[in-house]
Amino acid sequence: MYKVVLDVMGGDLAPLANLKGAELALKEIPDLFLYLVGKEKVFKGWENKKRVEFLFTEEAVEMNESPSEALKKKKGASIFKGLTLLKENQAQAFISAGNSGAVVAGSIFILGRIEGVRRPAIATLLPTLKNPMVLIDAGANVDCKPSDLFQFGIMGSLFLEKIWNRYSPKIALLSIGEESGKGNLLVKKAHQFFSKATLNYVGNIEGRDLFLGEVDVIVCDGFIGNICLKLSEGLAEVVINMLKQEVQKSFISLLGFSLAKKALKEFKKKSDWREYGGAPLLGVRGAVIIAHGKSDAIAIKNAIKQAVNFIKIGLIEKLEKAIEKNLSLLEESE
Amino acid sequence: MYKVVLDVMGGDLAPLANLKGAELALKEIPDLFLYLVGKEKVFKGWENKKRVEFLFTEEAVEMNESPSEALKKKKGASIFKGLTLLKENQAQAFISAGNSGAVVAGSIFILGRIEGVRRPAIATLLPTLKNPMVLIDAGANVDCKPSDLFQFGIMGSLFLEKIWNRYSPKIALLSIGEESGKGNLLVKKAHQFFSKATLNYVGNIEGRDLFLGEVDVIVCDGFIGNICLKLSEGLAEVVINMLKQEVQKSFISLLGFSLAKKALKEFKKKSDWREYGGAPLLGVRGAVIIAHGKSDAIAIKNAIKQAVNFIKIGLIEKLEKAIEKNLSLLEESE
Repeated sequence: MYKVVLDVMGGDLAPLANLKGAELALKEIPDLFLYLVGKEKVFKGWENKKRVEFLFTEEAVEMNESPSEALKKKKGASIFKGLTLLKENQAQAFISAGNSGAVVAGSIFILGRIEGVRRPAIATLLPTLKNPMVLIDAGANVDCKPSDLFQFGIMGSLFLEKIWNRYSPKIALLSIGEESGKGNLLVKKAHQFFSKATLNYVGNIEGRDLFLGEVDVIVCDGFIGNICLKLSEGLAEVVINMLKQEVQKSFISLLGFSLAKKALKEFKKKSDWREYGGAPLLGVRGAVIIAHGKSDAIAIKNAIKQAVNFIKIGLIEKLEKAIEKNLSLLEESE
Repeated sequence: MYKVVLDVMGGDLAPLANLKGAELALKEIPDLFLYLVGKEKVFKGWENKKRVEFLFTEEAVEMNESPSEALKKKKGASIFKGLTLLKENQAQAFISAGNSGAVVAGSIFILGRIEGVRRPAIATLLPTLKNPMVLIDAGANVDCKPSDLFQFGIMGSLFLEKIWNRYSPKIALLSIGEESGKGNLLVKKAHQFFSKATLNYVGNIEGRDLFLGEVDVIVCDGFIGNICLKLSEGLAEVVINMLKQEVQKSFISLLGFSLAKKALKEFKKKSDWREYGGAPLLGVRGAVIIAHGKSDAIAIKNAIKQAVNFIKIGLIEKLEKAIEKNLSLLEESE
C-alpha cells in the first residue's frame, strides 16, 4: 500500500475538490491508502469508504495567513497534523494545495532538512516546446544568497536525473543577457559557484528562451520564480482569450475557430499545470507535494498519482543519497 | 522640423533595417529631419536624400560589450556621438536599438539626470486586455534600492499622465501575494515609501494579473522587469506555435486554422511590441528612446514616430516640471 496524506482543507476549491480528487485517485490506484486530514463535518457521506482513514482537525491555515504566525498559533491545523503523520512514518507522502508558505515552514519545522541543505526549494515542472523542465525555486524563498541558488541547481538537477531519468540535465541561471556571468549581483555571484562545480551548468538563460526547452533546470530565487510562473499562466490565458476576441469579430473566422477548437483543447491540456499534479518541496526529510492553490479534483488526483510515483521511486532516499555524495559541493558553497 | 538622431549601427538587423526604417519614416512624416549616425560605408546610395544629415563614426558599441568599458574606450561610437548631438541641442530626440546598457550609461554621462532623479529607468508600454500599461524599470538597473522603485513609480505615473493623458494612473508593485506589503525585502521596503505618498498606489500586483489591465503602472527592479518582458514575448510566440502544431495534426483543424488565420494576424499585430516603437529612458535630460534589439524597419519607423510625438508633446519639459513639483516626494525617499 502507498500511504499518502491529503490536506483536505487547503486550496481555493477545498474541501469539495480535494475530496472529489481523493475519490478519483482511490478508483484509479488500487494500492493507494489515503489519510484525509480535515474538519469532521466535511467528511459526511465518506464514513464507509475503504482504504481511507480520517484525521479530524479543529482548524485550518487560511490562504493569506502568515506562515510563522500559523505555525505558532495553529499547531493542530490540517497542514501541520498531516506533516506530523509523515514525520512519524505512518504515511510516506504529504500533499497540500493550501497556504504554501505554511507548508514550507511546517515541513522545515516538523520534518527537518536533508543534511547539507540550507534552504528547501519548490521544484515545478513546466511544459516547453521539447521536454518538460524544472524551475527551482518556484516560491519557497523570496530572498536568497548566491549559495542558495547553487543548492537549488544541485537539487533540481538530481530531481530530474533520479526521478525523471533525464541524463546529465543542463542547468541554467535565469538572468538578463545570454553571456555567463551577466545579471544582478545575486546571479553574478551564483555563477561563480556553478562555474567551479562539476555539474552540467550551461550559463544563463533569458526570459525569452524559457519555454524553448533548450535547458532542463532553470535556477532562480523564489521571488522571481513565482512571478515568472504566475506570469506564464496568466499570459497563456490572455493570449488564448485575445485570439478568441479577434476570432469572434468575423463569421468566417468564427467558423474557423470552432473547427480549430479541438486543437485548442489539446493545446490547453498540454500546457495545463494540472496535468503535472503539484510541485515537490526539495530538501526536507519527506515527500512533500505542494499542489496549485486553484487545484480542482483533476489536479488533486494527479498530485496523488505524483505522490505515489515519488514513493515507488523512493524520491527522498535517492535525493538524500545523491546530496550526501555532493556534500563537498554543498560545503564549498558555505 | 522635428530633429531626431538615429543610431544606424545599433540592433541585430542594423544597419539595413535602420536605414529602411529611416526611409519609411521620412516618407510618412513630412516635417521630420534625421541625423543618421554610422560608419561612412553604410550610407552608399543615400547621398542625395533630403532632410537627412550624416554623422560618420569609425566605431560602434557591440551588443555584448560592457557599457562602462565602451564609454571609456569608444568615445566616438555612434551611440555616444548621437547623444552628444542631443546634448548640444542640435537634435531633440535620440533613438538606438543597440546595446541598451551603453545607451543608459551614455545618457547619464552625456545628458545628465533630471534634478531629483537618482536612477533613470526604462518605461515600456505593454498591451493588456484593456489599455496599454507601463512597466518600469524594464532593464536599466539590475540592482535597486527601495527608494529607486519609489522613483520609478513616480516617473512611470507622470509619463502616463502627461504623455498618454491617463488620469491618475494606478501604480502597483510587482510582487508575490496580493496583499500590500507582501514580497521580498526590496518590495516590502518600497511599499513603505508608496504607502506614505499621495500617489494613486494600489498595492501589489501578481504575475498572473500582469496583462489584465487592472493597473496602469507596474513597478519592479530592472532585472525582474527585463526577465518578465522577455518571458512574455517568448511565451506569446510559444503559445501560438504550440497551437499551430496541434492544429496541423488533423485536416479539419487545419481547415479551421487557415480560416482563423486572419484573426491570428490581427492578434499578432495587437500584441506586437514593434507597434509601440521603443521605450523611453525616463529621468535623463533629453528624449532618449531605446528600441528593441531585434528591431526591423517597421519597428525603427515606429520608434521615430514615437520620438516625433515626444518632441511635439514636450516630453522632457513636462517630465522635468512634474518631477520638480514632486521634488519633496523624491527627497522623502532619500
